[in-house]
Amino acid sequence: MKVLALSGNVKRPSRTAALVSVLVERLSERFTVEADFIELVDAAPVLFKALRADQLDGAGRTIVDAVEAADILVVGSPVYRASYTGALKHLFDLVDYRALAGKRVILVATGGTPLHGLMTEHQFRPLFGFFNAITIPTAIYATESDFTGYQLASDVVSNRIDRALLELASITPLLRPIVATTEPARLKQHA
Amino acid sequence: MKVLALSGNVKRPSRTAALVSVLVERLSERFTVEADFIELVDAAPVLFKALRADQLDGAGRTIVDAVEAADILVVGSPVYRASYTGALKHLFDLVDYRALAGKRVILVATGGTPLHGLMTEHQFRPLFGFFNAITIPTAIYATESDFTGYQLASDVVSNRIDRALLELASITPLLRPIVATTEPARLKQHA
Repeated sequence: MKVLALSGNVKRPSRTAALVSVLVERLSERFTVEADFIELVDAAPVLFKALRADQLDGAGRTIVDAVEAADILVVGSPVYRASYTGALKHLFDLVDYRALAGKRVILVATGGTPLHGLMTEHQFRPLFGFFNAITIPTAIYATESDFTGYQLASDVVSNRIDRALLELASITPLLRPIVATTEPARLKQHA
Repeated sequence: MKVLALSGNVKRPSRTAALVSVLVERLSERFTVEADFIELVDAAPVLFKALRADQLDGAGRTIVDAVEAADILVVGSPVYRASYTGALKHLFDLVDYRALAGKRVILVATGGTPLHGLMTEHQFRPLFGFFNAITIPTAIYATESDFTGYQLASDVVSNRIDRALLELASITPLLRPIVATTEPARLKQHA
């Protein structure tokens, strides 16, 4: 399955991008997926050349196509003004309103304080509800203190990532676990 | 007082821009204000050159300065993906987070169907709550059927505009009504 990770950060380095990366790494370790990662710090200057989808150039179209072609989206944003970044919203304004129906979406955010933790629920979840996408119940939110520099250092957040991946697998029949080839006997017993 | 009207439309002609215009015209007729109007279809290409406020060029800075200097904001957006446009959000991402505290904000939106009428409440109002701005209770929402072409043609919406202006005046002591010079006697009686 195709996984596209998006991070709404407009700066680099970015804790949001780091958090999204951890999620996609674990997803790639555990399941047979083809994963791609786009940060808005790179994508926004391309997408900002177009106000509307019909104005996208080739490079912009490639980004929007990648979103529309994905089976699973991992979407992260820093919390800006109590919501996702405008840059990330602009990308979704360019995505066809029918293109995300039924896709699985994992929600990720980072914020300056725990106060903005519900951004994932009040802003991100309704956005994907509009698109008729299926959002994974456990959203991942982290604050600066959950990182050492730009490395995730919180067991609580790490456990939430694992829970989100379990939930994703439970509602995604086509998501195939990677079989650990070092344990063939045990796998045979369970076959 | 300085009024800045903003419309998040990224196309022209725009019903949102038309609705915001009606509001600002009435505001200007009734009160002593200095009003300016910025449409994102013009402003976004300028603002999109910057990912962050420290990257704004002169023209971009002028737009952000106008938002930060206003006493009253009239902010409209078409409903895109159940929220305001990404272009408009990008503008507010560039506005200093301390700059709008205490400003009065009138919320305006247009949508394809009545279903998205609460965008003003669920998306716009919390955005300005973040900024510690004071949003006017009556928000203005209109659908295509409230217009003849791009002209507002709905008494219900028109009445809501009047109500919003009354509310604005009631919480804005410095907003001075324009004295009708044709009725001096009546005005004297009430003095």
